[in-house]
Amino acid sequence: MMHRAEYVKPDGRRLWVYGRLPPNITAAPSPAAKAPTVDAHLRRHPLLQEWVVYATHRQDRTFLPSPEDDPLAPTTDPWHPTELPAGDYEVAVFENRFPSLSLHSGAPSSVEGIETAAAFGSCEVVVFAQERSSSLGELPLDRICLVLEVWGDRTRHLQQAGLAYVLPFENRGVEMGATLQHPHSQIYGYGFLPRRQAQIMQALKDHYKRSGRDLVSNLAVAERDRQVRVVASRGNAVAFVPPFGRFPYETWVVPTRSVPDLAGLSETDRGDIAFCLSQALRRLDRLWNRPMPYLMTVNQAPSDEGPHPEWTVRIEICPIRRAPDKLKFLAGTELGAGVFANDIAPEAAAATLRSVRL
Amino acid sequence: MMHRAEYVKPDGRRLWVYGRLPPNITAAPSPAAKAPTVDAHLRRHPLLQEWVVYATHRQDRTFLPSPEDDPLAPTTDPWHPTELPAGDYEVAVFENRFPSLSLHSGAPSSVEGIETAAAFGSCEVVVFAQERSSSLGELPLDRICLVLEVWGDRTRHLQQAGLAYVLPFENRGVEMGATLQHPHSQIYGYGFLPRRQAQIMQALKDHYKRSGRDLVSNLAVAERDRQVRVVASRGNAVAFVPPFGRFPYETWVVPTRSVPDLAGLSETDRGDIAFCLSQALRRLDRLWNRPMPYLMTVNQAPSDEGPHPEWTVRIEICPIRRAPDKLKFLAGTELGAGVFANDIAPEAAAATLRSVRL
Repeated sequence: MMHRAEYVKPDGRRLWVYGRLPPNITAAPSPAAKAPTVDAHLRRHPLLQEWVVYATHRQDRTFLPSPEDDPLAPTTDPWHPTELPAGDYEVAVFENRFPSLSLHSGAPSSVEGIETAAAFGSCEVVVFAQERSSSLGELPLDRICLVLEVWGDRTRHLQQAGLAYVLPFENRGVEMGATLQHPHSQIYGYGFLPRRQAQIMQALKDHYKRSGRDLVSNLAVAERDRQVRVVASRGNAVAFVPPFGRFPYETWVVPTRSVPDLAGLSETDRGDIAFCLSQALRRLDRLWNRPMPYLMTVNQAPSDEGPHPEWTVRIEICPIRRAPDKLKFLAGTELGAGVFANDIAPEAAAATLRSVRL
Repeated sequence: MMHRAEYVKPDGRRLWVYGRLPPNITAAPSPAAKAPTVDAHLRRHPLLQEWVVYATHRQDRTFLPSPEDDPLAPTTDPWHPTELPAGDYEVAVFENRFPSLSLHSGAPSSVEGIETAAAFGSCEVVVFAQERSSSLGELPLDRICLVLEVWGDRTRHLQQAGLAYVLPFENRGVEMGATLQHPHSQIYGYGFLPRRQAQIMQALKDHYKRSGRDLVSNLAVAERDRQVRVVASRGNAVAFVPPFGRFPYETWVVPTRSVPDLAGLSETDRGDIAFCLSQALRRLDRLWNRPMPYLMTVNQAPSDEGPHPEWTVRIEICPIRRAPDKLKFLAGTELGAGVFANDIAPEAAAATLRSVRL
């Protein structure tokens, strides 16, 4: 059972609070009375055939504030409101004060010779817990289940708002570019299907056509049975290092049955995914006894009319530390050619993660 | 006039030294008598349809050595050989001691369920100058011309060795992942056409078919004439911020006539490109009076039989600093969706770079 309550902040942005019990808050705060004007638009990259977002109001966004200025902590002093209220709730979502994409984005002025478009979309912040000291992997399993439900709930609403693709993700750690230390994820909703997702969909459809099966859940079952690259498994879910992982210690968490998006997961699925996700994240943190910086993405089927029998939702955890004191940088070959170089074989990575003592 | 001499290091790797005058060195040194065994192979990512390189011998590669241990400095003490000899030469190229790809790469053992291949290719290091304190942008224009010629010379040889795509690039700065501070670039030769390059080629071919013109040199001419996004220009070349740039202060250096690769450039072209490149790099360094970390790629047409009337060689400089004290991180939207968010409009970036005093 999940309860949700919706509020509007003084500056017009929306806030949703979630809990296993009905949330109880008095009002939705905002750090400022007025939200910054969104000045964003899209331009088309003619060589890459990708949209680029220009969001020139974002340069002054909040950057690594001290704990006293944590905008994701509950408001304790009404004269210094944060983004979140005090009160009874477990998970909170609000519209980003410095969004790259907006549901209210206007038509851009034209740029001679190139295609432009409104930056139609949404940017939301998902706060996992009121405590700044926690991390997603260390939360109780039921809270992780709730986060999965919240991502799914917001996905459904954003799809209904007309967005073509909804991507929950977590940039974890300053090394990954996180500008707020309080554990949180983000949800980007795109008004278009990103080219990367279109390409993945095509590859998955081709595979489905050839084999009659969806690639990702079948891979999860095969990896669970082979055991070589398994990090954790329980019931309907498995965490494994994909045999073609691009990042060191890259780990995927995938249901073992065909489910295209978060909304399609059963309570049992969510429980098993939460277990595997927690195991994976905690093992990554304990690997060198320091928080692992990573990008985590929740890869659901596109929001079109479907159905998507070719697609199973997958959580990709892409760590960017390759050794205790060395980061994995994306540079010449990765950014210049899209060819990732990985120093650690998936089989060795999985064995190491399995051997970590929790 | 460019002179080249080829040597074989004690560990079997090759070294080439270049100069305007005939190079004069006594022998090719190597830091160790034996090169590390290359243990590398490719695996195919079935969702992204991209090859991933596994190079497990690379974890122990040289990492940010002190100036006394600079492997790219000329050898002064024969008991502590570096990668390069003392003597008369301007630019040096050698085969990387820790390559991701190798011309001698053997067939990999199979991995059940996925496609694998030999890591056929090459990784070379290009040292711009014997002095550790220099930078590409600060070198005399004739030296930059020589570097362009050396990249082109190695490209031609690697094409003749059967490589499908040759990519010279520079990872500049520790923030960009450079592990050696001595100014240098790298050249990766791929045994396959990377998917990114295949996609770009398709987009350029489509444009050529529609318009009868190649997109990139035409863009350069248009940008030069419009002036709005120009950073520098001279004769047959222009440096400009592309109207669809993905990185803050991204700058391209492009000839204004259709030339698919470095080998096709005339001496005049090279002189003008060197001028524009030097201007762009120096302005980026002076923007905040600190060395700008960047990825620079030299994007030539593929090495197939061609011709490639659709393709003009372009040098992309992708800085990763968005403010004096803030890096641009590639995270959720960039890596998860391929949708880059840029805080700085190209028009503003170009105006700022033009206003920098050199």
